[in-house]
Parts: sequence; C-alpha cells; structure tokens
Amino acid sequence: MLSVIKLGGGAGVDRAAATRDIAELLADGSRAVVFHGCSEAADRLGDVMGVPSRYVTSTAGVRSRYTDAAALRIFTLAAAQVNAELVIALQRLGVRAIGLTGADGGLLRGPRKDILRVVEQGRQRVLRDDYTGRVERVNADLLRMLLDAGYTSVIAPLAFAYSGDVVNVDGDRAAAAVASALGAHTLVVLSNVPGLLADIHDERSLVRTLCADDLAAYETRVTGGMRRKLMAASEALRGGVRRVVLADGRGAHPLRAALAEQGTVIA
Amino acid sequence: MLSVIKLGGGAGVDRAAATRDIAELLADGSRAVVFHGCSEAADRLGDVMGVPSRYVTSTAGVRSRYTDAAALRIFTLAAAQVNAELVIALQRLGVRAIGLTGADGGLLRGPRKDILRVVEQGRQRVLRDDYTGRVERVNADLLRMLLDAGYTSVIAPLAFAYSGDVVNVDGDRAAAAVASALGAHTLVVLSNVPGLLADIHDERSLVRTLCADDLAAYETRVTGGMRRKLMAASEALRGGVRRVVLADGRGAHPLRAALAEQGTVIA
Repeated sequence: MLSVIKLGGGAGVDRAAATRDIAELLADGSRAVVFHGCSEAADRLGDVMGVPSRYVTSTAGVRSRYTDAAALRIFTLAAAQVNAELVIALQRLGVRAIGLTGADGGLLRGPRKDILRVVEQGRQRVLRDDYTGRVERVNADLLRMLLDAGYTSVIAPLAFAYSGDVVNVDGDRAAAAVASALGAHTLVVLSNVPGLLADIHDERSLVRTLCADDLAAYETRVTGGMRRKLMAASEALRGGVRRVVLADGRGAHPLRAALAEQGTVIA
Repeated sequence: MLSVIKLGGGAGVDRAAATRDIAELLADGSRAVVFHGCSEAADRLGDVMGVPSRYVTSTAGVRSRYTDAAALRIFTLAAAQVNAELVIALQRLGVRAIGLTGADGGLLRGPRKDILRVVEQGRQRVLRDDYTGRVERVNADLLRMLLDAGYTSVIAPLAFAYSGDVVNVDGDRAAAAVASALGAHTLVVLSNVPGLLADIHDERSLVRTLCADDLAAYETRVTGGMRRKLMAASEALRGGVRRVVLADGRGAHPLRAALAEQGTVIA
C-alpha cells in the first residue's frame, strides 16, 4: 500500500517523530512518498538573512506567502534545509531516502501565476513579480522507478514552471497531485492542527469524517491553510486517492495516529 | 562514453558555460555525471549569515575549510544553492538533471575525520568538532539506474559518514571516487586555473601531459587545491578511469576544451 505523507512546514510539527513513524511504516512493508513544507524555516532564515517573509491576501481572501526573487532565494534555501534534515533523519533510521525538488528530473511542472491580485490596506493591487505556481504534471515514472528500487522520495515544495522558473507551490495541493499521479491509497496531511475543526477556536470540535460531497460546503466556510487542505483533499479524491487524512503533526506518533484515522478522514 | 565532470566551486568558474557544454555533450549521445564544489558560495553565504568561513592548515601543510557545526549548516545551504542552480540551468537546456547529495540514498559513504591536527600561529592544535570526511563507498547502483533512465545526476560535496553525520568532503577526490565506482572513461576537473602549472605564477607553464608514475613526484611539489587534484587524479587512475583532464573552467567552452585535451591530461 502506498501512502503520500505531507509534513507541514509550520511551527509545532514534530518532524523527528514523523520520520520515526515513517521508518516504522516502511519496516512493516508499506511504501511511501514524503512531501514537506518549509514555511517556518523560511521565515526564520529570512530573518537571519535580513529578508523577512511577507504575506499577502488575495482578492479571494486567501492569505499566502509573497515570493519575489529575493524571497524565492530564501525559500529555496529553507526548502533545501528542511529536505536535507528529513533525508538525514530517515537515512539514520535505515530508510533509503532521496531528496528531490520539483525541478529534479522535471518532477513537478505547471504554470507560474502571472499576476497576483492582492488587497493591501483596503486597496486592490496587482503583483507581477511573484514566483508561485501550481502543479499540473508529475513525473510519476521517476517516483515509481525510485519506489521500485527501494528508495523513499522526500519532495520539497518547489516546481519547475513551464516558464522555466522555479516556483513556490502550495505543499498540500502539490502533495495531492503527487498522490493522484501515483495512484496512492492514502494521502496523510500532518499539520499543527488536529484536522478540520467545526469551530476553529475549539480543538475538541474535530470533524471526524467527511465525504467528498461535503467538502465544497466546508471549503467556503474555512480560511487560510485549512481551505487549501480541503482543496487538496478534494483534488486527491478526484484524482483517485481512496482516503485523505488531515491529522495532527504534533504528537509522539503523528503518522501512526493518522493512519489509525485520528484526525479528519475524507473519503 | 561516460564522463564525470567536476565543476569547481571557486571564483571564476563559469558554471553557465559549463552547463551549456554539458547539454551539448549529452545531445551528442554521451553520458555524464556532474559533481560540483561550492566553496565561494559558502564563503558568501557565511558572510551574509554572520558566520564567516574559516580555514586551517594541517600539520601536513594542507589548507582546508574548517567546518564546525555552524559552518556545516552554511556549507550545506551553499551546496544546496549551487546544486539547485545547476539543476535548473541544465533543465532549461533540456537535460533531465537530478540533484543529489552524498546523503541521498546513501550515495557517498566514508569515515568522518575524528580529529584534525592544525597549525595556528606556529603552534599545533587538535580540533575535534570538524565535520569533514572522505568517500570510501559510492552507491553506483543508484547512479547507474538514473543514467540508464536518462537522468544526469548533479552531486554536491557532502557525504553521509559512517558515524551518521553529514560531512563536507573534498569535491575533487569525491568526484574521483564516483568516476572510479562508475568505471567512467574520463574525469574532467574544471577549476579556476588552466591545469597543473610547472610554475604556479605563470599560467603559460601548463604541464600538458603527465603519466600516472609522474604524479607522486608532483604531489609533493604543489600545494593546496592542486595537491588534492593530483591526489584525485591518482585515485581515479588507480580506480580504472582512463583519463583525467585538469582544465580551465573560466573559458567560453570549458568542457569542450577540456575534452579536446586543453589542460593537463593525466593517463
């Protein structure tokens, strides 16, 4: 059984615990592809390098990282840092991990967003120097070849845009694209929340199960990262993935818990 | 015919020109594995991040980068930066490049140097927190699998030591280990000098050819980077590589010139 495991890049996600669980899962004979974010690492590195992260809110109300050329350099370094840490942690646990970005072997391809319409201090503005994009095509042959040879791919959230640029992509949706391309059974999305909450202020209000048809209704009710997670879930299910689990990445056994369906299970 | 191409990480090496030549070589039906340094990039990044590079001179008179834990973090980032730049440049030229470090898939393994005996201000000192090592084993199966599938590996100078640490390795010697493991025909080492110079102060004093037996005599006469290049050449020839070319990486067609034996040819 193949799982695609997305490790959130936000504060609090316990990557060491997650890698231990991944090693355990693989030792049990399962196969996995790992996808990671690097948001907190990018914020920290930006501070150290004197290029603090900036965030913008689109006219559709979605908050996202603003990635101009200088920010892209930081983001790329942060992605490499997190990727290398995960690869090493997995290698130390006996997993034959291989770090990749979407540029490697043309792994993740798609359009760069030409313009970004944002709202700043109540006014609309158009940004043209943003290096973000989305994933339309996945080089599944490369991932399958590595899987068949016993390697576990660890993928950073950067794509190689049709324009020839490297672009920052949303990790949840990119992981969904990878899971779809590989025909994965399960997509696990670990972040620093327990899953989809009916009341965002109450972690006990976890929505335990959701069917694909309910997703659209929720998508309009939630904001920010969770909205993108629901979009990712919806895209993964449409792409043939059997089950998406949005789960807490902060526990001692985050992946084991997620696969035991502690979180929001969408199928 | 397989070539391993080492692109020096020092100032002046024209990586854009080298990648164009690599693309041309591959379009002609040759196969290549690329290995790169990142010395200048590490120095620059260290300055930006407030952790300037330090160099030490061993009791044997060899000057080398001192890589404590903080320096290793910088070096790792710089390696990732140069690696990503090369991968993108090659991808844009239609080459299916894949960036790797020695940690990926256990590609480069070897011992970490436990202690480093250095001379500082005329006094001997022992350093125990240095993260450097050397390559004893290469996962040639991984590189061959990628080559056979049409991918060109681009390898950064970091190994996964037996101790479980990631360590900085000398790029020339590591490239020689890769060339030997793959049974490469040619190892090209591009740097910011024309090759081995009989008189280090005179670029016209290029030594055009050298046989394996002459190497030892030269090794004791040259210093620093060139000494390591001659050691690398010697190791590559002993490992079965047919030809080593030490050539200038600063020209408009550095690889083309090197393969036409403009440089020091050691066979």
